[in-house]
Amino acid sequence: MKNFILDISYDGNHYSGWQRQKNKRSVQGTIEKVLKKILKEKKASLTSASRTDAGAHAVHQIANFKLSKGPFLKPEPLLKALNAVLPSDIRINSLRSARADFHARYWAKKREYHYLIYNHKINSPFYQKYAYYYPKSIDLNLLRKTLSYFKGRHDFAPFANLSKTNVKTTVRTLYQISYKKKGPLITIILKGDGFLKGMIRNIIGSVLAINKLKQNPSLIKEIFRLQKRTKERLIDKSGSTVPAYGLYLYRVYY
Amino acid sequence: MKNFILDISYDGNHYSGWQRQKNKRSVQGTIEKVLKKILKEKKASLTSASRTDAGAHAVHQIANFKLSKGPFLKPEPLLKALNAVLPSDIRINSLRSARADFHARYWAKKREYHYLIYNHKINSPFYQKYAYYYPKSIDLNLLRKTLSYFKGRHDFAPFANLSKTNVKTTVRTLYQISYKKKGPLITIILKGDGFLKGMIRNIIGSVLAINKLKQNPSLIKEIFRLQKRTKERLIDKSGSTVPAYGLYLYRVYY
Repeated sequence: MKNFILDISYDGNHYSGWQRQKNKRSVQGTIEKVLKKILKEKKASLTSASRTDAGAHAVHQIANFKLSKGPFLKPEPLLKALNAVLPSDIRINSLRSARADFHARYWAKKREYHYLIYNHKINSPFYQKYAYYYPKSIDLNLLRKTLSYFKGRHDFAPFANLSKTNVKTTVRTLYQISYKKKGPLITIILKGDGFLKGMIRNIIGSVLAINKLKQNPSLIKEIFRLQKRTKERLIDKSGSTVPAYGLYLYRVYY
Repeated sequence: MKNFILDISYDGNHYSGWQRQKNKRSVQGTIEKVLKKILKEKKASLTSASRTDAGAHAVHQIANFKLSKGPFLKPEPLLKALNAVLPSDIRINSLRSARADFHARYWAKKREYHYLIYNHKINSPFYQKYAYYYPKSIDLNLLRKTLSYFKGRHDFAPFANLSKTNVKTTVRTLYQISYKKKGPLITIILKGDGFLKGMIRNIIGSVLAINKLKQNPSLIKEIFRLQKRTKERLIDKSGSTVPAYGLYLYRVYY
């Protein structure tokens, strides 16, 4: 038995997310289909560090898969075969042997995501499906303050979409949440032990709502305390989520 | 009579180039159609600084158009109407009144183009239609030397596709030809008084052929002297042009 680890990039625009789904084109399903074809196996099952949303991208997704015929298989030719057959919006950056007990999800210590905002009066044709177009001005000082309220260990339930999920706890730790700006492009960098479904897009949506409505960023503290984004609160009325095509799984730390 | 000047960005991937063509989707044709619709005019004719190739992009294309009903028309609402109706892969960055005799092509003093090369073993899903994928290693010292041979005033006929064109002279001046590198992305920057059809893609193709075949870069000088890329020369055999989707009209100087 052999265990292989893959580093994968993909443009998520034409996929219904990472996770395999019946009758839908997923990244996992696409790679598994190609693996089965190349290896002439009936089954090939990938385990990934993150299940990215429909439309979300990955710069370095990490996945592993196990094979009984592994000992006879060299990583280098398999990597070449995969990239030759896969569609060009999915690329395997590397493929190598891993310890038999390596598990891409359980072993992951930190995950880093980037969310891209294109902040300019006129959108760019080159970022239309790769960054969230936000034409209103962004108060960078307020942005920095608002982001700081998310840092640390919190129950992130009010910033998650928990329907159709089955998680033991909604407590997560955000080690880093910061931004960098280059011209009209603002990148929000989030590093945490794990992320709930919808968590990043709800965080960014709330941050932009606070910017738009010039709210006090301490509202975030209040939401964590009350554990809800109540209907009375303005933050709920102004679109509390942002599109997936601005979201990138950037790196996984083991 | 009023003269308007436009600054335009476009992703050229879904267009047969700037120039209006019968039964083909061009950038010029698309904008003119929208202009006619908005202005309720039978004719609207754009003049541009550059006719970009099929598939090539523009960060700042400059164009102008004249209108008899101009005096009653304000630039700001027209800009908004254009961006509201145009497809999202074309954006008008600005629109303003110009002198009556302003001509986007004749008045242009310099044009700046960028050519993007993605130089890495594995291609990136995010650059597949925005940079030329070149997996072989590039000798940056040789690249710099090769580029330097193109600088200055030359008869660029051996680096142009002159069929179906009608130019008075094939002599052009390249004020700048240099590169910058950021990770796997190499950008070739070209600034000149004008460019012949196919000139940039032939230059980049020849530069990469010299790299691949480890030729002496003085071969470029020889080609200018002989005014042909002869069949005997290796440079001809190794694909002397590169795809248009790596090419960007970056700026026009007046």
